[in-house]
Amino acid sequence: MTLYLIGLGLWDEKDITLRGLETVKKCQTVFLETYTSKLNCSKEVLEKLYGKKIIEADRNMVEKDSAKILEPAKTSNVALLVIGDALSATTHASLLIEAKKMGVRVKTISNASVLTAVGITGLELYKYGPVTSLPYPEPGFESKTAYEVLVKNKKEGWHTLILLDIKAEQKQYMTVNEAIDLLLKIEQQEKKGAFGATTAVVGCARLGSPQPLIKYGTAQELMKEDFGGPLHCLIVPGKLHFIEEAMLQEWRIKS
Amino acid sequence: MTLYLIGLGLWDEKDITLRGLETVKKCQTVFLETYTSKLNCSKEVLEKLYGKKIIEADRNMVEKDSAKILEPAKTSNVALLVIGDALSATTHASLLIEAKKMGVRVKTISNASVLTAVGITGLELYKYGPVTSLPYPEPGFESKTAYEVLVKNKKEGWHTLILLDIKAEQKQYMTVNEAIDLLLKIEQQEKKGAFGATTAVVGCARLGSPQPLIKYGTAQELMKEDFGGPLHCLIVPGKLHFIEEAMLQEWRIKS
Repeated sequence: MTLYLIGLGLWDEKDITLRGLETVKKCQTVFLETYTSKLNCSKEVLEKLYGKKIIEADRNMVEKDSAKILEPAKTSNVALLVIGDALSATTHASLLIEAKKMGVRVKTISNASVLTAVGITGLELYKYGPVTSLPYPEPGFESKTAYEVLVKNKKEGWHTLILLDIKAEQKQYMTVNEAIDLLLKIEQQEKKGAFGATTAVVGCARLGSPQPLIKYGTAQELMKEDFGGPLHCLIVPGKLHFIEEAMLQEWRIKS
Repeated sequence: MTLYLIGLGLWDEKDITLRGLETVKKCQTVFLETYTSKLNCSKEVLEKLYGKKIIEADRNMVEKDSAKILEPAKTSNVALLVIGDALSATTHASLLIEAKKMGVRVKTISNASVLTAVGITGLELYKYGPVTSLPYPEPGFESKTAYEVLVKNKKEGWHTLILLDIKAEQKQYMTVNEAIDLLLKIEQQEKKGAFGATTAVVGCARLGSPQPLIKYGTAQELMKEDFGGPLHCLIVPGKLHFIEEAMLQEWRIKS
């Protein structure tokens, strides 16, 4: 009689915690949220590990048709599996509020998130300003939010983590290269001097996986690098402590 | 021939991931970092689960005598278990740099961190300014850092997560009540109007555990509340979206 929000971690079926696995095994119904991130194993692999059938839940089900998830949780244990941390995505708040209204108890089981997995770069987590995300431009609408956050963070000397767009249904995941290209274009329009060809950036791919890739160089240099498969993210470092500087040199690309 | 930094997650032995468990089982030497957080099970429980003897590593060993950890990793697999996420604590950068110098390969296995477990409060993670921490005052030195971060974040309308001091060796963990008291005293000295008796705050205890406790009220109200055992943290919300406001009302204490 509980809805369990269970974080699956950042890579594949092995990133669930013992507590998460134990909990999903006792749930009668298991949903998998599929639209805010990407898991690197098939649904079938999870089903075999859990000994449960899994129902895929898209944005529509979680955000607009949440009764499908909440109704069964009134009388049985239901799991909603979330890639990364259980509550890092911004889209689950409405589900929690609905749950409260319907008298459904919710418990969460935490897991790793890219927001802290970036710790591997050596940039101190307490020196990041607000995180932001960069969406693909839509016809007639190009979001300037990431750029504006960057402008503010840079002014304060803070690091900026930029999460890159995911179009899960089209299996389209923004690359570091696309992100740099987009930011250079926004800079050309906005001209606030926050992002240029010589801006030092850290490109990351597959953080939290057994084979993460991190490269440090100028925007122009990183544009030409191949980061491999998704997910990617981009960091624009702020003011560097000498230990951070030393850590970044470990990722410096040969030019 | 690898040093594995393995996050243990936020509560007890069940918060390790399957990947973490599998990895620690194949390590010849296992260290447990004991000074940046608190795990809620004994070392013996972990030893039984892993089938390994565990060596406790205090700050001195990790930061100053790291050869003790790195030397065996030249010729065998070594695990350094870290409570929370593997790389969220600021104190491990020097270890990574030493490892590089000594030619020791390092891999990390991510896990949950309080930095994202605060998502449970309903405050959006992308609206947090930089995180900060509040230390116990020492004779002749009272850190104003947390207060200064708060002043800046408030000005921008951002939320502020304040991590509270841990003196692991003395088993002393700062409470929400102590933190509020300290911040009120700093406000009296600094007078920047960032924290007062009527400031709305969110007190959290044992985030990431099966029984987290969250209370929302004014600083004055929360001062009188009992938050139970450690770890505690304090959030000062910035500008609230109406959904965030609705979520906070779920934690509102009866006055």
